[in-house]
Amino acid sequence: MNAALITIGNELLSGFTVNTNASWIGLELGKIGIEITVHHTIQDNKRDIIFELEKLSKKASAVIVTGGLGPTHDDVTASAFYSYFDDSPVFDEEYWNDLTDRFSKINYKIPDVNRNQAMKPQKGEVIQNELGSARGLYFKKGGCHIFALPGVPKEMKAMINDSVIPILKDQVTNPLITRTIRTTGIPESALAEKINEKINIDYSQCSVAFLPKLTGVDIRLSCRNIKIIQDMEEILTPVIEKYVYGYDDVSLEEVVGNRLRELGLTLATAESCTGGLLGHRITGVSGSSDYYLGGVVSYNNKAKMELLGVKKQTLEKFGSVSEETVREMAQGVKSLFKTDLGISISGIAGPTGGSPEKPVGLIYIGLSSEKEVTIKKFNFFRDRDSNKRISSQVALNMIRLALKNE
Amino acid sequence: MNAALITIGNELLSGFTVNTNASWIGLELGKIGIEITVHHTIQDNKRDIIFELEKLSKKASAVIVTGGLGPTHDDVTASAFYSYFDDSPVFDEEYWNDLTDRFSKINYKIPDVNRNQAMKPQKGEVIQNELGSARGLYFKKGGCHIFALPGVPKEMKAMINDSVIPILKDQVTNPLITRTIRTTGIPESALAEKINEKINIDYSQCSVAFLPKLTGVDIRLSCRNIKIIQDMEEILTPVIEKYVYGYDDVSLEEVVGNRLRELGLTLATAESCTGGLLGHRITGVSGSSDYYLGGVVSYNNKAKMELLGVKKQTLEKFGSVSEETVREMAQGVKSLFKTDLGISISGIAGPTGGSPEKPVGLIYIGLSSEKEVTIKKFNFFRDRDSNKRISSQVALNMIRLALKNE
Repeated sequence: MNAALITIGNELLSGFTVNTNASWIGLELGKIGIEITVHHTIQDNKRDIIFELEKLSKKASAVIVTGGLGPTHDDVTASAFYSYFDDSPVFDEEYWNDLTDRFSKINYKIPDVNRNQAMKPQKGEVIQNELGSARGLYFKKGGCHIFALPGVPKEMKAMINDSVIPILKDQVTNPLITRTIRTTGIPESALAEKINEKINIDYSQCSVAFLPKLTGVDIRLSCRNIKIIQDMEEILTPVIEKYVYGYDDVSLEEVVGNRLRELGLTLATAESCTGGLLGHRITGVSGSSDYYLGGVVSYNNKAKMELLGVKKQTLEKFGSVSEETVREMAQGVKSLFKTDLGISISGIAGPTGGSPEKPVGLIYIGLSSEKEVTIKKFNFFRDRDSNKRISSQVALNMIRLALKNE
Repeated sequence: MNAALITIGNELLSGFTVNTNASWIGLELGKIGIEITVHHTIQDNKRDIIFELEKLSKKASAVIVTGGLGPTHDDVTASAFYSYFDDSPVFDEEYWNDLTDRFSKINYKIPDVNRNQAMKPQKGEVIQNELGSARGLYFKKGGCHIFALPGVPKEMKAMINDSVIPILKDQVTNPLITRTIRTTGIPESALAEKINEKINIDYSQCSVAFLPKLTGVDIRLSCRNIKIIQDMEEILTPVIEKYVYGYDDVSLEEVVGNRLRELGLTLATAESCTGGLLGHRITGVSGSSDYYLGGVVSYNNKAKMELLGVKKQTLEKFGSVSEETVREMAQGVKSLFKTDLGISISGIAGPTGGSPEKPVGLIYIGLSSEKEVTIKKFNFFRDRDSNKRISSQVALNMIRLALKNE
């Protein structure tokens, strides 16, 4: 089964809003085996919306439209739907009373402009919105399921989960099944080389896509036969085991967090060039206080010395971006927080501050455990944001690998 | 002048890649007064690409296509262009030698599959790619300027800036001018109320859009008359001055950083529930070491006491999420780092950890300066990520407001 997506709004076209609704919907439909085959973004214009409905409902078994359901004059999606389906909406007294109540509870008199949000179709159905005032619409025409949903992400997501997915799920026969193997620490080409020789003619029904990101490469397997997906996973994983940190939606910080909790170990961070990003990522996981005790952002040398106990001679002799300094930072933060592990990052994030001996992108990462201190040296990128992101990823991966066989 | 955008690739449709290329291109063209009026995302399919070129080149004065220019079998954009423009590409020996050289410099023998990347059009032109092997294409047909660019963001961006913008800029007459007033600390409806009464009939040529985000509301003015934009800005700014932190692309962390540098002041951070996000944002600005000395992520109470000097009695009597604790955290981090300002955040980020007295979303933020300590209490959201993001924004804004009249 395939679907078409229409997203409406000038703020999407002008680039002021990144269209994360579209990717979210793609992923969610993908999970129940529905593939989005076309996606159009258009302006808030009734004629254009009708034109797109006409065209895309012939190309797909489901069409999802988001945006343009609000109360103001540029919200024309509902009106386009009523025209296209030749429907005469009626005023929904009950919903209007409900809306009036909701507004009065927050001490507002409901503006008359909201009255159009209380209209309901006669030929189609209403989709409830628990989080906002704009209800959705659902029509069927020529075997195609057509939905209108608001553009506010929170509202749209709840309505997709609660109403759209249950309707569409029943329509899917022979769904496309997807499994994502998440890797980090190996470039796309090397990964492909390792994998390609394992893929033989028997697996031609399974499509293998490489999705390289700055922080790692995802391998996406998709196939209509679950047995083949499972076989592929079993064959591929051992060849690239060292690089696989998880499957599907899991993040590296969750994997590391779960492992720390399992082993009953605690962690502290000492960050220089990443400025707190590593701590932010670790604490993005709910329950991280079980294993993460805290950290120091030692952005200047004084903090490195006074808080983390990095020796003055070390800084003078080797500099703040050096193997010796991150070693003392990792050891220092471990003993400061009395944790089992201490991880440290120091480098030149750029774009300024580089030199011929220590160029932008030079990053040292240190991991101190009960047994030993491991230091790694990297030459990453020329831009600040990439250097911060990749450093935090590599640091997490160093913890993961250290705990793998514990 | 208007443009149409075609982005190609299954990874966009499936949601595995968020289409940040589209928003980036929208913003860049907007800067030179070109509006994107339609954007289609389609699969890597030659017939579909030709169909879209046919249709969209009639609707817009420029069409930009990204993706599908790589060396593999699913890269069919170039071939679709040659068909659509009825061109017979020729092999570009010189570029092939150049590519072979580039590969051999990184010790690779160039695969034959790359040969199609060395083809060049006879009717159209090539767009150079300094950062990758896939060159772009440029054709003119019926007054429409049509470009093919790779999908790799870094390569696409450089090619837009270096080649596409210079070509299109010359075509723009009477451009749409855009000015964004960036605000934080006031909801959309209250902002609209303040502004709407100032907008009179004289300014009807200027469109005013409100772009609410979690961390603030951007007001976008757009108009073809620069004088009207300037007038509007002058009239509106005083009414909402307290909330305006900057214009266009500037970020709050840059504004705060510049002000700290101007005043010669230094800052340190003490973060609990934000876990390092505030430090990460501050250090996202190049040159932030001029004013940011570092911070402590005091994720557990021990760190709050031992590093920041929060009193045991304070934690026992009021708890770690309290006015008293953030006061001592802010003072503590200020004296620990010997800075002019210390800022602290403690709260319940959620989704777990709330109680009837201290629900999820309860956040305290403290700012300690030479003169005083200011504490603010907030009741934010139910989800972790939103609470972290809004808290870091409010903290930065508290610093901004404190330094405004210094």
